[in-house]
Amino acid sequence: MKTFTDKEIEQVYKMDEAIKDTYNTLNTLNEGLIKMEQRTVIPVEGDKVMLYMPCVDNKEKFSAVKIISIYPDNAADGYPATQAVTVLTELEHGENVATLDASYLTKLRTGAMTGIATDLLSKKEAKELGIIGTGGMAFEQALGVLEVRDIKKIRLFNRTLSKCDNFKIRLEEHGVKADIEICEDVNDVTSASDIINTATNSTQAVFEDEHVKEGAHINGLGSYMPEMREIHTDSIKRARHVIFDDVDGVIEEAGEFIHAVESGDFKWNKAIGLKDALNQEFERNNSDITIFKSVGASYYDMSAAIGAYKKLV
Amino acid sequence: MKTFTDKEIEQVYKMDEAIKDTYNTLNTLNEGLIKMEQRTVIPVEGDKVMLYMPCVDNKEKFSAVKIISIYPDNAADGYPATQAVTVLTELEHGENVATLDASYLTKLRTGAMTGIATDLLSKKEAKELGIIGTGGMAFEQALGVLEVRDIKKIRLFNRTLSKCDNFKIRLEEHGVKADIEICEDVNDVTSASDIINTATNSTQAVFEDEHVKEGAHINGLGSYMPEMREIHTDSIKRARHVIFDDVDGVIEEAGEFIHAVESGDFKWNKAIGLKDALNQEFERNNSDITIFKSVGASYYDMSAAIGAYKKLV
Repeated sequence: MKTFTDKEIEQVYKMDEAIKDTYNTLNTLNEGLIKMEQRTVIPVEGDKVMLYMPCVDNKEKFSAVKIISIYPDNAADGYPATQAVTVLTELEHGENVATLDASYLTKLRTGAMTGIATDLLSKKEAKELGIIGTGGMAFEQALGVLEVRDIKKIRLFNRTLSKCDNFKIRLEEHGVKADIEICEDVNDVTSASDIINTATNSTQAVFEDEHVKEGAHINGLGSYMPEMREIHTDSIKRARHVIFDDVDGVIEEAGEFIHAVESGDFKWNKAIGLKDALNQEFERNNSDITIFKSVGASYYDMSAAIGAYKKLV
Repeated sequence: MKTFTDKEIEQVYKMDEAIKDTYNTLNTLNEGLIKMEQRTVIPVEGDKVMLYMPCVDNKEKFSAVKIISIYPDNAADGYPATQAVTVLTELEHGENVATLDASYLTKLRTGAMTGIATDLLSKKEAKELGIIGTGGMAFEQALGVLEVRDIKKIRLFNRTLSKCDNFKIRLEEHGVKADIEICEDVNDVTSASDIINTATNSTQAVFEDEHVKEGAHINGLGSYMPEMREIHTDSIKRARHVIFDDVDGVIEEAGEFIHAVESGDFKWNKAIGLKDALNQEFERNNSDITIFKSVGASYYDMSAAIGAYKKLV
């Protein structure tokens, strides 16, 4: 039984590989060779929760369980709000082979699906990326987009504006060559960006629909609970194409979509799962907007954990 | 995140401590502070299975998930038929603190409950222990009995008789002072023993009821699937007291009891769970026989993992 830290994983397993592995996993899912089981949710105390997400890949011959603690008030004590590990078992002989820290992997696998969805939906000539929310998940979501489009300009907005500085430095240190601008007004981001990434903990829409650039593609990466909101209802209403990372998961968890269905502004059957979107062409004219919405699913976690493990050993 | 091997755990965490910890865990269960969730069973291929067993202890403030692969034909490739690890999360801040190999811990926790049940049910003056089946689980079950009764004589029977030799040596090397005899006839074991441990993979009764010593206590530790049998139906029928390690688990899994209920020889309401038996007196006369039946439950695994972890760090 080996143990790998986030740092060890981050050094060897990168976005381009995660995108390939995620793509392959979605195909395996389509072949019926992945079994995702119901996750187990155990409330601990107050709003603290333990989650157990098991999954089996009968093609790669691994099973994985991601173990996640969600402790919203942890920051006060110097701990992250979310802590996760994934245990991998090889299925030839059932040997439990590794425990991997899953903080980096969770961000990376979300970035990978963001990359795949952005490649399917956004304009080929998209050059400008807008980022709303520069917190924990945002960095790898930017990398996912950068992997599939030739981005020349990145605009950043964060409610606490000063946090944009570090985010800009981090992108630059990572080798990102695009021009990076920090915006004080979120409308300056949305009105200029071909691709908009939102990754916040907001409980209301983080931008106004009327300022969204014509033809923009929106990646909604926060709003993973019914009480959360991030993408504006009017954007949801007029989106020409909508892809969900996991249809069942989004229907259960994604606040702004649940809200839009309740208000009659959206119908679930308008959306398509990422696995079903893989080999489709999505027609669009210059004014159409499109949306990718992610809440996560255990097969994405498994995919990244297997990919990382293979590089590590 | 720390990782501990079976060997490291075995060096520091022993039967006497496991019995105390198991006893405390059962009391915590009675206080309503333990949440055992439905386990997840994922069939892999053929008769191979992955099991995920999560559990939370809100008194000790740990959660645990035991990850088990059951690969019945593994021996041919030099792997154990069952391989398990337990991941522990502390619940103050939700930190995933350790992955523990769970092979030794599974045997130890079963031995601990065998000890507790034997202390409740067997005659105080019991001096002779009979062991039917000297395979993987048997050693710690013997230690559990030795912890609670002053055993002077141990009789061993195994279908493959030669395996008894190693088992005898192992007991002696462990410091067991009782006289140890290897028997070629299982009746020689049952007719002389005050306490009988069975731990086999049998699909039929491993002894005849008519040869069981008057006043004997039987610990049934195999037969953890509906198609398995171990304790003779006639013994089940006439037992004065029956304790199950976990009532719901036994009803679902224990072959000889399911069979006895189907044939009208036993009623489920005659049995009592170990947690409810803790502070009871079980009256018996000299001819009464009693039975403890174990199939395992996640709170026992959690208890041993927490106990071991506390000793290790």
